[in-house]
Amino acid sequence: MLNISTRGQEMPPSPIRKLVPFAEAAKKKGTKVYHLNIGQPDIETPPAIMDAVKHADLKVLEYSHSAGNESYRRKLVEYYQKVGISVSHDQIMITTGGSEAILFAFFTCLNPGDEVIIPEPFYANYNGFACTAGVEVVPITSHIETGFALPPIADFEKVITSKTKAIIICSPNNPTGYLYSREEMEALKDICLRHDLYLFSDEAYREFCYDGEYVSAMQLEGMEQHVVLMDTISKRYSACGARIGALVTKNKQVYDAAMKFAQARLSPPGLAQILGEAAVDLPDSYFDGPKKEYQARRDLLVSRLNAMPGVFCPNPGGAFYAIARLPIDDADKFCQWLLESFSYNNQTVMLAPATGFYGTPGLGKNEVRLAYVLNLESIAGAMDCLERALEEYPGKVKIEEKKQALA
Amino acid sequence: MLNISTRGQEMPPSPIRKLVPFAEAAKKKGTKVYHLNIGQPDIETPPAIMDAVKHADLKVLEYSHSAGNESYRRKLVEYYQKVGISVSHDQIMITTGGSEAILFAFFTCLNPGDEVIIPEPFYANYNGFACTAGVEVVPITSHIETGFALPPIADFEKVITSKTKAIIICSPNNPTGYLYSREEMEALKDICLRHDLYLFSDEAYREFCYDGEYVSAMQLEGMEQHVVLMDTISKRYSACGARIGALVTKNKQVYDAAMKFAQARLSPPGLAQILGEAAVDLPDSYFDGPKKEYQARRDLLVSRLNAMPGVFCPNPGGAFYAIARLPIDDADKFCQWLLESFSYNNQTVMLAPATGFYGTPGLGKNEVRLAYVLNLESIAGAMDCLERALEEYPGKVKIEEKKQALA
Repeated sequence: MLNISTRGQEMPPSPIRKLVPFAEAAKKKGTKVYHLNIGQPDIETPPAIMDAVKHADLKVLEYSHSAGNESYRRKLVEYYQKVGISVSHDQIMITTGGSEAILFAFFTCLNPGDEVIIPEPFYANYNGFACTAGVEVVPITSHIETGFALPPIADFEKVITSKTKAIIICSPNNPTGYLYSREEMEALKDICLRHDLYLFSDEAYREFCYDGEYVSAMQLEGMEQHVVLMDTISKRYSACGARIGALVTKNKQVYDAAMKFAQARLSPPGLAQILGEAAVDLPDSYFDGPKKEYQARRDLLVSRLNAMPGVFCPNPGGAFYAIARLPIDDADKFCQWLLESFSYNNQTVMLAPATGFYGTPGLGKNEVRLAYVLNLESIAGAMDCLERALEEYPGKVKIEEKKQALA
Repeated sequence: MLNISTRGQEMPPSPIRKLVPFAEAAKKKGTKVYHLNIGQPDIETPPAIMDAVKHADLKVLEYSHSAGNESYRRKLVEYYQKVGISVSHDQIMITTGGSEAILFAFFTCLNPGDEVIIPEPFYANYNGFACTAGVEVVPITSHIETGFALPPIADFEKVITSKTKAIIICSPNNPTGYLYSREEMEALKDICLRHDLYLFSDEAYREFCYDGEYVSAMQLEGMEQHVVLMDTISKRYSACGARIGALVTKNKQVYDAAMKFAQARLSPPGLAQILGEAAVDLPDSYFDGPKKEYQARRDLLVSRLNAMPGVFCPNPGGAFYAIARLPIDDADKFCQWLLESFSYNNQTVMLAPATGFYGTPGLGKNEVRLAYVLNLESIAGAMDCLERALEEYPGKVKIEEKKQALA
């Protein structure tokens, strides 16, 4: 018998995409579906960077350097300088999306059986990369009541074992939108130094901070050998399909070992590197528009959510996600019901059940993630649907009941 | 102490790229270096497929489907039909280069500790992917005397254990250029069926066959569940930098499990998928030019090599590589010496020591791989250099001595 590998069997399917067949069926019935389920922004990719690809004059589309074009890496030094991160071009490795930067960090720093601590809820694909690398994810729960702030350091201390090798953070966060404060970043630094842990820092949403000060892990003094930055242009320039990211580290051993994985796959995408390089030349003011737009969407989304009976949504400080607690029995059932059995004015909304973002089974059952990647009108329409759906949903849990259950 | 993972330590560096610093130093001294060391073709990327990207009208460069754009996969069904491979679009998964197809096949079908048999010499990056996946490579030696024909099936039988899960082939072959005959493909089929092994078939060079009939593993009847095709457009359309490949299989379990790895990394490169899709529409006559050019280069290269005293180079049936046996003590030393200490009319040649392509230590010490990716004039210039170098090289082994040593 030919068998699938154990990791092939254990590899988790995408929790975001499992509702796709229900969305497709709803659309076939003629129902309009507001997609708040996935972090695919609707913001236009800057025409100037698409034009850079169109105007490139290449006779032969050759392999690039395995670490990416040197000209692009040198440009990125300027970019990082602007956001307060001081690195040299040989500390930057261009990767195929942020995804590959995460994979390289896992492969390079972690052995099969090693443990990595991640505050939950977290980006679900970390599970997939951990499974690929044979690494165990140890979740530490952050809570909606605190807006998903960093869990107390004591919670980290409790789960650290001899197998713990790294902590992964994402700030501003996907899926919570939470932005770690300087104090929280310093607390992470202390624990990493005390226990000799790597800090893998996913900073995909750096440009989208609405409240508070953005602090990069790369700015933490004394953490130069510990920090591996996992970056991407996907959200920054609304260029998810480019598949251009970067692994950045001042740890030369990590860089050199990661380079061997990079060499095996030859090079990152060539056309998209041209786009990425051009993006560094966009004026600083470029972000003003998207940021203002996202902030207006956040404000509308969060205020609409909190105005619904029994709904609670902490105000996210950055990124373009929010997690809301709904007065429902089961988020997976509810999200499927929205697509299968509900419509309002021939419209419905697609949300991501938060269960897929927790590592601890049973958590997130009455929470959903909403990505505010649609324009204000669509968000208003989606909120109208959700408000009505919460009135109609048969699995609704009354606030009184919930309070009792929590008590 | 922060440590690099074991796999990060054991990951082999690229054997092809280790001579790069010596080439750079030679160029700094003003020496012209003929690059026969790497499979980066000089053939122009078809302007029509570059234009397809330039004319694409995308507002937002979005994630594609994790398996690649459906329109592209449907087009590829036509392409495969033309080359005698009958598949449906849901048996095709677009990958980030052939590299990712190889990785997905390893992750999906093989457990850490499993063994994969590969006729050596073989594409060196299989070692890197095996290391990444924790898989053991078991080489079976093919010999220059037979032109690197498939080793006797008895040699496979000898090394098959309960841990053997797959055989990897590449035909036409990198690095030998050998093209497996129908009989050899049937022999591989028999052994895979008898021992229930996957057959991973790397067919990157399908379009470049000069002698004999091309047989795809996908054409082997009864092997539908066993074959995983690892494909790429890199060499086919001289588009190495696009990073577009494909994993193709009729085994639904394998496809579905591989999809989970594909979902974790979100999608393959978007701009380059446009290029790949346009390539399917190139006229069938497109390959006539490159193929004729490669064949002329092969003929020149092989005849020049075999005319040099003590040199033997079997005539490769396909791809654009040849392995030659030289009258030298050590190919690694010789290739470095060519760059460091030799020049002829201010020119030298960069070759790949064959040692990097063998899994068995000590093999290939008097062999080099030559990639005929330069025009005829350059190949002639490179051969002039090599001929002279073999006269001057201090580590030359006389034919008589070699015959004695072999006896």
